Amino acid sequence: MLVLLTGGTGGAKLVQGFNLEARPEDLVIICNTADDFVFHGLHISPDLDTITYTMAGLSDAAKGWGIRDDTFVVLDWLGRLGGESWFKLGDRDLATHIMRSNLLREGLTLSQITERIRKRLGIESIILPMSDDRVETRIETPNGEISFQDYFVRGRWRDEVHRITFTGVEKCRPAPGVLDSIREASAVILCPSNPITSIGPILTVPGIRSALRETRARIIAVSPIIRGMPYSGPAHKFMAAMGIEVSAFGVASAYRDFLTLILIALEDSELMRKIEGLGIQTVTTSIRLESLDDRRRVARELLALL
Amino acid sequence: MLVLLTGGTGGAKLVQGFNLEARPEDLVIICNTADDFVFHGLHISPDLDTITYTMAGLSDAAKGWGIRDDTFVVLDWLGRLGGESWFKLGDRDLATHIMRSNLLREGLTLSQITERIRKRLGIESIILPMSDDRVETRIETPNGEISFQDYFVRGRWRDEVHRITFTGVEKCRPAPGVLDSIREASAVILCPSNPITSIGPILTVPGIRSALRETRARIIAVSPIIRGMPYSGPAHKFMAAMGIEVSAFGVASAYRDFLTLILIALEDSELMRKIEGLGIQTVTTSIRLESLDDRRRVARELLALL
Repeated sequence: MLVLLTGGTGGAKLVQGFNLEARPEDLVIICNTADDFVFHGLHISPDLDTITYTMAGLSDAAKGWGIRDDTFVVLDWLGRLGGESWFKLGDRDLATHIMRSNLLREGLTLSQITERIRKRLGIESIILPMSDDRVETRIETPNGEISFQDYFVRGRWRDEVHRITFTGVEKCRPAPGVLDSIREASAVILCPSNPITSIGPILTVPGIRSALRETRARIIAVSPIIRGMPYSGPAHKFMAAMGIEVSAFGVASAYRDFLTLILIALEDSELMRKIEGLGIQTVTTSIRLESLDDRRRVARELLALL
Repeated sequence: MLVLLTGGTGGAKLVQGFNLEARPEDLVIICNTADDFVFHGLHISPDLDTITYTMAGLSDAAKGWGIRDDTFVVLDWLGRLGGESWFKLGDRDLATHIMRSNLLREGLTLSQITERIRKRLGIESIILPMSDDRVETRIETPNGEISFQDYFVRGRWRDEVHRITFTGVEKCRPAPGVLDSIREASAVILCPSNPITSIGPILTVPGIRSALRETRARIIAVSPIIRGMPYSGPAHKFMAAMGIEVSAFGVASAYRDFLTLILIALEDSELMRKIEGLGIQTVTTSIRLESLDDRRRVARELLALL
């Protein structure tokens, strides 16, 4: 069994590679849910959805989020009625949010709903939210504390980041199956998602980090940082705010208490010795995951390493 | 001031005529809300919406409900995810339901939301729900008691009707403005909606029927029945179940305690004397409202009668 820890866009690229290269019944994907938020009264789980759509072959590779060929009629009319329309909800995508919000109100858990949706979409791999409890990433900026989506989507990650907190994380419990799958996995892959706001919340859920320390699985990370910059998104701002060096070395050191191996970019080969000084094996390869071929190749390389 | 009491489809045809023939600032439209229901966790107000879309010039004249040129992407995907899709919610229409449901949860009343939406859509006339409180039409059929939408849309009004009840109506209050507008109106028009399940609930809201009896306004009904059959929908089944003769005479007698005049079909002119026996004036004209020209003509005829 292969467990993947992931956020949305960045991690989803590697998840897509594994979806096409690994046996689906071998995969368990644990998703960040700290970016979840409520928009027009609907519960949105951006990372869970991006992963679900990716696994169902429905994802929009060009945009990196949402469903391919989606339309935006509802959002357009919400705007016409005076509603907020800064978060881009497609019509197909909206069906997921409407269904999830309704089932949550009926008392189902996020995991139960995720399971129902993945089965309906014909996904054979398991997809788990990190927790069924509400955890919320809050970003402290010079203009006050805002939610992750306010920072990331509405503010287009332009604000300076002072501090990141995960509200509710102390009291939350891992979703059913999360700890067991980490304990029983032959390998755990930390996908190239933002180490602070995507992988970070997962590691902060009580019990997950110690399960990673204790499992006999090999734990491999793919660096989301190449030559001191993330290849997408604002990870550098968050890492700097947390006092973590913005480099593959910084990523490795953030995971040093449980990491077996890190895949880093060829351009970062001078970091190998420094990372290996942490007791972490290092392999260099081309880790930009823009093309589907690259995504499949990196997944194959990781499978070969196991 | 002209007050129109109406349900959805049938009444909306005459409302459209008035929208084009009367001064918009003179119109107050009071809508049935007993057909409201919750679908996928969204609060749907079919009659309020049909009237709002009609007044905004957005209605779908061919279908008689929804917004013109609407698409059905979300509903299609809800079905794909295993959700119910028997109630035809268009994408544009869904924006209304999402916004209303969210604002209701935030504590706004149905009237406040209706007011906000009509202003955003540039409607100058006032649109009022009969009540801000929840009233639900329940239909007793041989297979048990079901909601109005279950009977009307899902079951395509095929079931026999034993009994009709309006759950919650005893405790509900008229929405703000409803009683005052009836009291201050120069005329009240009962649109050709189903007298039992569209006009019926409005008349049952505590205070409305007595306001109609007491107002100095002339009160005019347009018969929805021609030669013993409704010109659309299942009004005959409901009237029969309530022991009301399925004819323009039956309609007039149901409104006899407050009605000044009823407009009936030319084909029903033999009923004139019988209706006038109730003390209700009777005018015959062509009351089929299929074409826009007919809708405007009947509105003009009614305005001329006032």
